Amino acid sequence: MEGDIGRVAIVGAGAVGCYYGGKLAASGENVHFLMRSDLETVRRDGLTIRSDGQELRLRDVNAAGSTAEIGSCDLVIVALKATANDALPELLPPLLTPSTAVLTLQNGLGNEEQLARLCGPGRVLGGLCFVCLNRVAHGVVEHYGHGTVSIGELERPPGDRARAVAAAFRRAGIETEVVADLALERWRKLVWNIPFNGLSIAAGGATVDQLLEDPGLERLVRELMLEVIAAAGAQGKKIPREYADFQIERSRNMGAYKPSSLIDWRHGSPVEVEAIWGEPLRRAQAAGCAVPRLDMLHQILRKLTAR
Amino acid sequence: MEGDIGRVAIVGAGAVGCYYGGKLAASGENVHFLMRSDLETVRRDGLTIRSDGQELRLRDVNAAGSTAEIGSCDLVIVALKATANDALPELLPPLLTPSTAVLTLQNGLGNEEQLARLCGPGRVLGGLCFVCLNRVAHGVVEHYGHGTVSIGELERPPGDRARAVAAAFRRAGIETEVVADLALERWRKLVWNIPFNGLSIAAGGATVDQLLEDPGLERLVRELMLEVIAAAGAQGKKIPREYADFQIERSRNMGAYKPSSLIDWRHGSPVEVEAIWGEPLRRAQAAGCAVPRLDMLHQILRKLTAR
Repeated sequence: MEGDIGRVAIVGAGAVGCYYGGKLAASGENVHFLMRSDLETVRRDGLTIRSDGQELRLRDVNAAGSTAEIGSCDLVIVALKATANDALPELLPPLLTPSTAVLTLQNGLGNEEQLARLCGPGRVLGGLCFVCLNRVAHGVVEHYGHGTVSIGELERPPGDRARAVAAAFRRAGIETEVVADLALERWRKLVWNIPFNGLSIAAGGATVDQLLEDPGLERLVRELMLEVIAAAGAQGKKIPREYADFQIERSRNMGAYKPSSLIDWRHGSPVEVEAIWGEPLRRAQAAGCAVPRLDMLHQILRKLTAR
Repeated sequence: MEGDIGRVAIVGAGAVGCYYGGKLAASGENVHFLMRSDLETVRRDGLTIRSDGQELRLRDVNAAGSTAEIGSCDLVIVALKATANDALPELLPPLLTPSTAVLTLQNGLGNEEQLARLCGPGRVLGGLCFVCLNRVAHGVVEHYGHGTVSIGELERPPGDRARAVAAAFRRAGIETEVVADLALERWRKLVWNIPFNGLSIAAGGATVDQLLEDPGLERLVRELMLEVIAAAGAQGKKIPREYADFQIERSRNMGAYKPSSLIDWRHGSPVEVEAIWGEPLRRAQAAGCAVPRLDMLHQILRKLTAR
């Protein structure tokens, strides 16, 4: 098959891992899931993905309780919460051969770099997922819309490997693009995530419409976006200031949408504070870029999400 | 009597009004309380002030259900929550003669100016209360410490009237000073109140020690203090930058102290968001002084305290 991606491991079988791994498996890829709490249920009942009133049921899922059980793979897809990255040095080695590619589908900044330190930079890919998912039960994922993935490579233009992975995603029915500058795309996504995910928590559970219906809060959203755009510019990642207006306008019809970090916070799940706010803040500060609102938001979120 | 203050009305008989009004009454001043929810209890049982394990019980308290019932006074002490200031145009007229002085013991900025618009600027005094109080039941106030009052006049140096009121407070056992520049003192108090009262709410119920034990939050406290100091300077109210360090150091032994706004918020009572954060912000902005953290804190508090 053109662009065969070989044996695939999914590390972190939450909503993102189950959804994309499940779609790949359904399209015939050789996918192996590392599972913890869902392991028994999935071995017995398989995986279920509900989407647009349809149900995709996968029987005979390859679910393993350890990466040693999975063994070496050609592609490792990391879909852990970034807050669980401390587990990677133990999880990854059994999966790796000298040519294994590692693709992180995690949020925020710093995940590719952490994988590069663990596995070497030449094999690291990153993907941004624009998708609304919820794991509603063991082995059951609900998909509320979107699903697009943007795939690129760490600190270099995309090569054959990125294109082969993107092709496999497309064969699985996932709208996928290959991006020339992965870091730029990560900063562009943060322009939305930093204000909306952050203020939804800091303002006590505010939905997107609530943040935009109040002129003072909308102004704050825009000011945070402009700080992120300035921070990106200080890294050489040029985003025009008008992108803030574009992101605000496209958010106006989202209604009472709850950003994923708000859902995590409400459920008592870990919030990816360092990947989404802390690492962008540190890179801005290292570049001498003033981001007082991002700094304050990071401090408040650290405290609100501390456990 | 030297510096006789005559007939006194207390408008707003919460903890502050009951405490200072009660002390004045106990020292022999002719004090009349406007009361709502406490009226019946106080008429029957009087007022009780608990302090340092002692109990001051006042029988035969002059408690009225309306300011018309109280009638004209020589001194009106306003101790309402600033969030209830909309009631003043209706409450004050029955109490006023051409020579009545009006003293606000309220928090934040803008209260003296509002009284000046209602009653004319020449009669307006302001007092800052450094006190820990809690109204624990109808007619019962607990006093946890301090109690110092700083009295000055609106936009002019203190005159005989401010000195006479201060003398009456001192006769009532209240440590009282007359301040040369009331606005400067209000800004100095805000250097503490803006970060600690605000972040205690925004950080999800943080006590003073929690805000200071985390280096990131302590830095944020200091940065907010420096913004307030800059805003004061832009109004011609000079506060040295070292005052921020002084206020942080003196707060280190406060332990798990809950700022008053946090207590209000927890109880579902109105928080004086505009007096403590909104009005200082607007004055800073009008003077062209950048206060991004104060601005953000104000927006978050508006949302968190909206009802």
